[in-house]
Amino acid sequence: MKIAIHGLGRMGMQIARKLAESPEHTAIAHNRSTDKIDEAVGYGAVRAVSKQEVLAAFEGDRAVVWLMLPAEIVDQQIDEWLAVLPAGSLLVDGGNSDYRLTKERAVKLAQAGYGFVDVGTSGGVWGYQNGFSMMAGADNPADFQTVEPALKTLALPEGAYHYFGPAGAGHFVKMTHNAIEYGMMESLAEGYQVLKNGPYQGLDLAAAGEVWQHHSVVTSWLNELCQNALTKNPELEGIDGLVAESGEARWTLETAKDLSLPMPAIQASFDVRIASQQNADARDFRTKLLAAMRNEFGGHELNK
Amino acid sequence: MKIAIHGLGRMGMQIARKLAESPEHTAIAHNRSTDKIDEAVGYGAVRAVSKQEVLAAFEGDRAVVWLMLPAEIVDQQIDEWLAVLPAGSLLVDGGNSDYRLTKERAVKLAQAGYGFVDVGTSGGVWGYQNGFSMMAGADNPADFQTVEPALKTLALPEGAYHYFGPAGAGHFVKMTHNAIEYGMMESLAEGYQVLKNGPYQGLDLAAAGEVWQHHSVVTSWLNELCQNALTKNPELEGIDGLVAESGEARWTLETAKDLSLPMPAIQASFDVRIASQQNADARDFRTKLLAAMRNEFGGHELNK
Repeated sequence: MKIAIHGLGRMGMQIARKLAESPEHTAIAHNRSTDKIDEAVGYGAVRAVSKQEVLAAFEGDRAVVWLMLPAEIVDQQIDEWLAVLPAGSLLVDGGNSDYRLTKERAVKLAQAGYGFVDVGTSGGVWGYQNGFSMMAGADNPADFQTVEPALKTLALPEGAYHYFGPAGAGHFVKMTHNAIEYGMMESLAEGYQVLKNGPYQGLDLAAAGEVWQHHSVVTSWLNELCQNALTKNPELEGIDGLVAESGEARWTLETAKDLSLPMPAIQASFDVRIASQQNADARDFRTKLLAAMRNEFGGHELNK
Repeated sequence: MKIAIHGLGRMGMQIARKLAESPEHTAIAHNRSTDKIDEAVGYGAVRAVSKQEVLAAFEGDRAVVWLMLPAEIVDQQIDEWLAVLPAGSLLVDGGNSDYRLTKERAVKLAQAGYGFVDVGTSGGVWGYQNGFSMMAGADNPADFQTVEPALKTLALPEGAYHYFGPAGAGHFVKMTHNAIEYGMMESLAEGYQVLKNGPYQGLDLAAAGEVWQHHSVVTSWLNELCQNALTKNPELEGIDGLVAESGEARWTLETAKDLSLPMPAIQASFDVRIASQQNADARDFRTKLLAAMRNEFGGHELNK
């Protein structure tokens, strides 16, 4: 299919590249800074510096534009696209938007005569290599079907993507995934800190990570990333232990509170990150390992 | 090597079977109830109804006896073995003992002239099929080396077992593993409960589990077990949601408190299990999923 990718950050570039390199698709690369567009063109994408160039690449047909943008500029960019897109065009929000806003945007876009699909994406910086894990929602299932050929290329094998229901369902499942991620990361980090500072001095944490990765109950990609980080840097030197939060766990906790659903482990995990931002005393080996895991899966900076 | 397995419960039987079926080992099967011994003999183990029969199987040589016993009877059984074993024999505690007791037992056994190795074992009821994840400790590294041929058979591939240091180090690493397991399980269960009772009615939880199992950040054996449980029984019907705790997380929290190491997510996860035992109101879809995961990995009963 012909599809424009707007926003060539870490995740957007991988998506543009995977689509551009597939013989089944034509990927149109659009981004604020042109150096990223040049990189995508190197992978086979069509160059589109302006929105008008994106439209020109669709030759006046209805366009499909996949937004991979920071959450805070999504509304503004949707408005800019609505001002220029032919009626019947379709927008995909592939970023980490709040599902509650996605529901509102879907109504607004439908009223204006546009299709809308939300796609939550996991897989971090390894998605290009391994395939992404993708969670979709759309009020109109036909809109999902329009986008599905791209998902088939991006999310492999079968089962790696799914249409979960009405608008926001994709972002809702992805948001919940990230909240679980916070809790799993904190659990691992708390455990490794006890190994590190427990009664057995010099205990080999990377070896524990490796043993656990062979058919133990905690076998997981996150544990593998702990093992990798602790193999490369056993003392986690040079990491300040300040851990960012990117919204999804906060939204999940708000949703859980609205519904009176208990979420104590994820709440505790979220609170640890907030404390690490506010107070140097709350930074320790554990929060350094959280930062190291984020760096391993997402390419996030070790220090902010 | 020649090795006796004392205690043929869920884990002990798998260990006895894997050793008995290996051409490199002679496994001697000892258990309180003889039906389990008969089963092990069916896998190729040597029958030993009494401790004297175990000794006879070693033909008067120093024996190696691997204990796979409930934590509360380990001391009594060690005393019984000390009364009959030839000096220089070696005991392995492969169960889930408190590492603080293991340290004391190692001193007592060394003073009496016996070797002692602690081995923490993970892998649940799948260990026979997939190989175990094994964490060893011993004050005398030569004792570990005596047992290592059995570990090579039980824990595959290389890296699936490791010698972590002095007596108790194996149980300490295994204990910490289990505490992490509590936190990871609770995090998954909290997330699935939000999917279940969130704003998208009828959302396919098993499909979320499958998507997440394809290169998402929460990809893990525990998530795979959630997926399996939710595929078989989407409403988790017939599960009462009372979740047992088996000691290790409690010991980890005690150790963390002694060392002033924060462990809020694991503490919260532990508290959820205690509450589920004390109060029917604290049982919900989430604690049912915890019970379902325990059943999937460990064959633990769904209801107590």
